[in-house]
Amino acid sequence: MTVREQLYRQLDPVAWKGKGISPVNRVVCCAIVASAFFAIFETEPTILAGRERQFLWFEDIFTTIFVIEYLARLWVAGEDPRYSGSVRGRLRYLVSMPAVFDLLAIAPILLTFAGSEVFLLRLFRFARLLRVARLGRFSKATHRIVQAIDSRKHELMVSLFFAILLLVAASTMLYIVEGDAQPEAFGSIPRAMWWGVVTLTTVGYGDVYPHSALGRILAAFTAFIGIGLIAIPTGILAAAFSDAVQREKQDAQKARDPAE
Amino acid sequence: MTVREQLYRQLDPVAWKGKGISPVNRVVCCAIVASAFFAIFETEPTILAGRERQFLWFEDIFTTIFVIEYLARLWVAGEDPRYSGSVRGRLRYLVSMPAVFDLLAIAPILLTFAGSEVFLLRLFRFARLLRVARLGRFSKATHRIVQAIDSRKHELMVSLFFAILLLVAASTMLYIVEGDAQPEAFGSIPRAMWWGVVTLTTVGYGDVYPHSALGRILAAFTAFIGIGLIAIPTGILAAAFSDAVQREKQDAQKARDPAE
Amino acid sequence: MTVREQLYRQLDPVAWKGKGISPVNRVVCCAIVASAFFAIFETEPTILAGRERQFLWFEDIFTTIFVIEYLARLWVAGEDPRYSGSVRGRLRYLVSMPAVFDLLAIAPILLTFAGSEVFLLRLFRFARLLRVARLGRFSKATHRIVQAIDSRKHELMVSLFFAILLLVAASTMLYIVEGDAQPEAFGSIPRAMWWGVVTLTTVGYGDVYPHSALGRILAAFTAFIGIGLIAIPTGILAAAFSDAVQREKQDAQKARDPAE
Amino acid sequence: MTVREQLYRQLDPVAWKGKGISPVNRVVCCAIVASAFFAIFETEPTILAGRERQFLWFEDIFTTIFVIEYLARLWVAGEDPRYSGSVRGRLRYLVSMPAVFDLLAIAPILLTFAGSEVFLLRLFRFARLLRVARLGRFSKATHRIVQAIDSRKHELMVSLFFAILLLVAASTMLYIVEGDAQPEAFGSIPRAMWWGVVTLTTVGYGDVYPHSALGRILAAFTAFIGIGLIAIPTGILAAAFSDAVQREKQDAQKARDPAE
Repeated sequence: MTVREQLYRQLDPVAWKGKGISPVNRVVCCAIVASAFFAIFETEPTILAGRERQFLWFEDIFTTIFVIEYLARLWVAGEDPRYSGSVRGRLRYLVSMPAVFDLLAIAPILLTFAGSEVFLLRLFRFARLLRVARLGRFSKATHRIVQAIDSRKHELMVSLFFAILLLVAASTMLYIVEGDAQPEAFGSIPRAMWWGVVTLTTVGYGDVYPHSALGRILAAFTAFIGIGLIAIPTGILAAAFSDAVQREKQDAQKARDPAE
Repeated sequence: MTVREQLYRQLDPVAWKGKGISPVNRVVCCAIVASAFFAIFETEPTILAGRERQFLWFEDIFTTIFVIEYLARLWVAGEDPRYSGSVRGRLRYLVSMPAVFDLLAIAPILLTFAGSEVFLLRLFRFARLLRVARLGRFSKATHRIVQAIDSRKHELMVSLFFAILLLVAASTMLYIVEGDAQPEAFGSIPRAMWWGVVTLTTVGYGDVYPHSALGRILAAFTAFIGIGLIAIPTGILAAAFSDAVQREKQDAQKARDPAE
Repeated sequence: MTVREQLYRQLDPVAWKGKGISPVNRVVCCAIVASAFFAIFETEPTILAGRERQFLWFEDIFTTIFVIEYLARLWVAGEDPRYSGSVRGRLRYLVSMPAVFDLLAIAPILLTFAGSEVFLLRLFRFARLLRVARLGRFSKATHRIVQAIDSRKHELMVSLFFAILLLVAASTMLYIVEGDAQPEAFGSIPRAMWWGVVTLTTVGYGDVYPHSALGRILAAFTAFIGIGLIAIPTGILAAAFSDAVQREKQDAQKARDPAE
Repeated sequence: MTVREQLYRQLDPVAWKGKGISPVNRVVCCAIVASAFFAIFETEPTILAGRERQFLWFEDIFTTIFVIEYLARLWVAGEDPRYSGSVRGRLRYLVSMPAVFDLLAIAPILLTFAGSEVFLLRLFRFARLLRVARLGRFSKATHRIVQAIDSRKHELMVSLFFAILLLVAASTMLYIVEGDAQPEAFGSIPRAMWWGVVTLTTVGYGDVYPHSALGRILAAFTAFIGIGLIAIPTGILAAAFSDAVQREKQDAQKARDPAE
């Protein structure tokens, strides 16, 4: 086995023959998590103060790791049958989704050197976490959750549609009832919708709430309906997960008794 | 196929032979959603300021679309076997639920020209969204949710009844315990019920809450019971959705093995 | 059929041969609901002001109805095989649970004439609602909910026990971390438990919350665990309701195919 | 049966032949609960004031009970086949998990005599509650809950991972949008995460919330996603409990029809 082939097996989670995540990918995972932590905490002035050099130093390390990883993935891409062929294959790899994703993940670090503020791009670094976690040992569990949500996406969309309808209805009523008394909070439907979302989702910040008796009665109905808003998608997902568990058991039984 | 028949198939989601929603209905759906957005945002003074003419102009467009749609539906109604017969059929259509609904949906726009404030009637325009969404591709998912809720309506009514009982019991206790200390918030049972709803639904605005030790102990029990209040309808709906999924699978299997 | 027998069938929901609730019991139910409404709203000074006479007048009507109902039930009790025997049967009825319950339900009204404040006893009047609602058409749905909760009472008690354990653990930690900074809110474990309940149940009034970084990290963990606290009993109840639905379907199938 | 054997059966819940919890263990359970109550309430100055002697006196009683219990368990350990052998067996028992746990449970009381503050160690006394409750009548229900959670630990971990991802994404967006307007609340990602946790878990204290229109739109999305965050683990657990109930029923049926 050539070095390139060995490295390919280490870097590609699908090609990896061992259990879980390969040692090289484990280092990459840790670097992703660590760089995310640094990206989060360097925004806090009380943490950053007097440690700017150390933070920059760690950034350099992570950049180096991710650049090396990117180049290594580019080098071993030829092992993948989809990207075979020396120049054309590499170009096809370069414009593939994972490669563009990887490039975006190192881009913010490169931009940091330019001194610009790139809060949004830092999110891409974190997006890598999702890509890596999707693979390896968690893949089956993530797949189950995504599939269960996907199998009921029409019902979930309808319940979201009902939620929006309720939100508009509740906000319009409160706008009519409380609009004159509290123009700042209920003076228009979009303003009243802030109260509507906060109430229907049972968050309840308490920055805005009706003061009149009629407004409170309508808000009470909204809050009760808000429980239904939580109960319906939860019930749909519970049924979907229950169904997925049963199908899996039936598949396992069929695999045991193929004669059946 | 006559022009009237073609238009009928375009306008009636049930008569439509293609997948999803017909092109004409898609335009109608977009107009409904857009007119709802305009109705919501024109209540916000900071958005409306200086754009009154544009808003009125858009209103005119939507009114025209909905009036044309109403007249078109009236014209093609003869294609529907239920409304056959030139004069009597049209009269029967005019007083049918969907036609009355459609008329109410254009009424607020017509009233706007009169300069009167018609917040409530604007809701009807939004009600059209529900009517259209019920048809077409979402119909099956909406049907499932409505049927699942309907199949457990007795249990859901009983859990609502328990909720009201708990609300009255909790509010009465807080009224007895906190009524003297906070007459504004707990001075009567109806006033204490505002606190009760906010606590039982776990919204928790924080505008009113008990100050005494005994009041807080009672509020703690109420909050814990509030979780049960969420858990019971959620559990009922989860079981209903689970049951609906299984029945559907059995029906699909029966359709495959009619000999069984 | 004697008059007493006829009245017995009207008053006893089990002896009633018709569907739902008998006409006489329907009047009693309405009187119970109405008297509860009056009991709730007469505590509100802005509603009571100037209407004291009307409220007292309605109280008199309800008292008369409930006293007549009580005497009628006492008279027809002899029709019930359990209370047969003229004097001994009546005495046995008088000390039976429903009769004592009925007496308590009219007691507060009788006490109102004495001018004393009887907030707590008013709850008993409302307790009648529960007794009546348990019977008649809702009995099956209520029975299902009570049975589903009862079948999982050990699991629900264990999850409540876990909740209390989490509450004590979270409150103790916040007491240690925030006790010095906010002695009023976190100065002792019982005080911190108020915050703990408000956070774990996701009510979140916002009257007390940690200010320090460590306190907020602990509170974040508590809030996340609070979701689990809602998820566990909901999941248990969902499984219980699902199980009840399936058992019912199996029983219905057995009743159809007794040969199986 | 020797005295030691009799005491062993009283102290070891597994060796106890009777139903539920043995009389001796019942006393131990009550002492644990009572000592926890005292530990909680002695932190409240208004309760402790003037009762320091009584609290210390009760502490002495509980210490005595737990020390006697500890010595008794050490004495009867020889009856347990795992700890047979006079000296080596006892030493093996002394370093076993339950014995170390028991020692930690009496340690805080012993340390109290030294006058030091031992808030954290007091938690260990409460941990005994869990150990005892795990045994006896609740063991089956606790086992079911723990097993149901354990059987879906991968899915629950993935949903926790999604929750953290959403938390970071929402907090970063609010930090970008509201950071300049509210530097105290949204001036850095870790600060914005406090808002994120409070919103995603639907606690909603109301100490921090967005003021700008864009911030409120993002917060509304976060609050809606927060419902999904509650719905997913609840659905997973509901499916797990449903599965556990069905497996139990199948096992019970197999036990009845072993020929199958």
